[in-house]
Amino acid sequence: MRIDVLTLFPEMFDGVFRSSILGKARDKGIVQLNAVNFREFANNKHNTVDDYPYGGGGGMVLKPEPLFAAVEDLVPEDGAPPRVILMCPQGETYSQRKAEELAGEEHLVFLCGHYEGYDERIREHLVTDELSIGDYVLTGGELPAMTVIDSVVRLLPGVLGNETSAITDSYSTGLLEHPHYTRPAVFRDWEVPEVLLSGHHAHVAAWRREQSLLRTLNRRPDLLESAELTAKERAWLEQMRDKTKSE
Amino acid sequence: MRIDVLTLFPEMFDGVFRSSILGKARDKGIVQLNAVNFREFANNKHNTVDDYPYGGGGGMVLKPEPLFAAVEDLVPEDGAPPRVILMCPQGETYSQRKAEELAGEEHLVFLCGHYEGYDERIREHLVTDELSIGDYVLTGGELPAMTVIDSVVRLLPGVLGNETSAITDSYSTGLLEHPHYTRPAVFRDWEVPEVLLSGHHAHVAAWRREQSLLRTLNRRPDLLESAELTAKERAWLEQMRDKTKSE
Repeated sequence: MRIDVLTLFPEMFDGVFRSSILGKARDKGIVQLNAVNFREFANNKHNTVDDYPYGGGGGMVLKPEPLFAAVEDLVPEDGAPPRVILMCPQGETYSQRKAEELAGEEHLVFLCGHYEGYDERIREHLVTDELSIGDYVLTGGELPAMTVIDSVVRLLPGVLGNETSAITDSYSTGLLEHPHYTRPAVFRDWEVPEVLLSGHHAHVAAWRREQSLLRTLNRRPDLLESAELTAKERAWLEQMRDKTKSE
Repeated sequence: MRIDVLTLFPEMFDGVFRSSILGKARDKGIVQLNAVNFREFANNKHNTVDDYPYGGGGGMVLKPEPLFAAVEDLVPEDGAPPRVILMCPQGETYSQRKAEELAGEEHLVFLCGHYEGYDERIREHLVTDELSIGDYVLTGGELPAMTVIDSVVRLLPGVLGNETSAITDSYSTGLLEHPHYTRPAVFRDWEVPEVLLSGHHAHVAAWRREQSLLRTLNRRPDLLESAELTAKERAWLEQMRDKTKSE
């Protein structure tokens, strides 16, 4: 997979693209990661990439020419057009389903604005997807782009080793994870639950499933609607829910 | 404000802590940003920070000792205890309201795991907040921590200049932003809407409000419930909603 990021702050990506899973995926040749300063495509005397908004008001607006030119420069002559992804608060809320969809692509281009708005013609005629990673205000699209890239690249074949893929991810089972414990068995008077020290595999499995269900009920009951549960588990959760309400 | 991040990958933070708003806030002395490798607090022969889970199963679990020792080392002798924030998929969904709450604190400590689970005693006895930035699986807590830090620091007094705070943020008005346009008036046959070139301020303001309402209706109707709207606007939105449905 090839991933290009258009940004005015390419140096923000240095540490993230070099470290951990992204660095390893790059070293293995599974993904090409490039951060490109689109100011290089400004093509005007002062290298400006933004301008005042028509109709007045505060703030600056990113001009269409540099971003169109930068994206067009990134498309190989014989290549299929890339997915062009705009990170912005107005976008579709990013989800694991979208990560899986993007992991099937060959070429992703991310547009990251910073402070400024985007000329609407960029959204209408250049961008294929608008994504938001959540309902909070950020300074720019760079951290959201890194977040999407991390979630997509870790899904590519060969990226995660056994040591990591063995962990059951929340969202992949549809439930939140059960608690984990490791040594020491007693830390500052706080003990590991006895069942985990018992060596009785069926009891351990039952405890973990119960804890996972309880945690999901307490913290993210919305996830239970689409989780795969047995009839017995659903009945038990109803009991627990009633119990919590009456307390 | 002081912000410490405990991570096994402090180099991931280099570019982000140096650039843009975070770099400026740091240079102005508004925030201290430190990424600390908690392996330094492992205090055992092999500097291990994780171990096998009690009860068996794949994956590794972060041990309690290094993280307790690292956090305790960060608390100044006469200082108030910091907010200790764990970035994890099981956490409370992060929101702008939470960003505003954290912006009122003096000292934040972020715990970033990577691949591994956390020993449950860390959640129970060390952590004050568990946060998730969204429903997607990431490699570690580092990008979520950067995201939360960016959203909090930009709210601190003196961080944003006029050029940026002038932009109306989505979420602060409760509606998505209207479209923006800048020069050229015609780009590849695509024209700027005439009203924006009219110089008629009241018409421009009315068009923008209408576009903002329409975009919110189309993309994030959930936001309309809590937005401040006039009775006339609510009636108009009802009309538009019915029109969309019948099309």
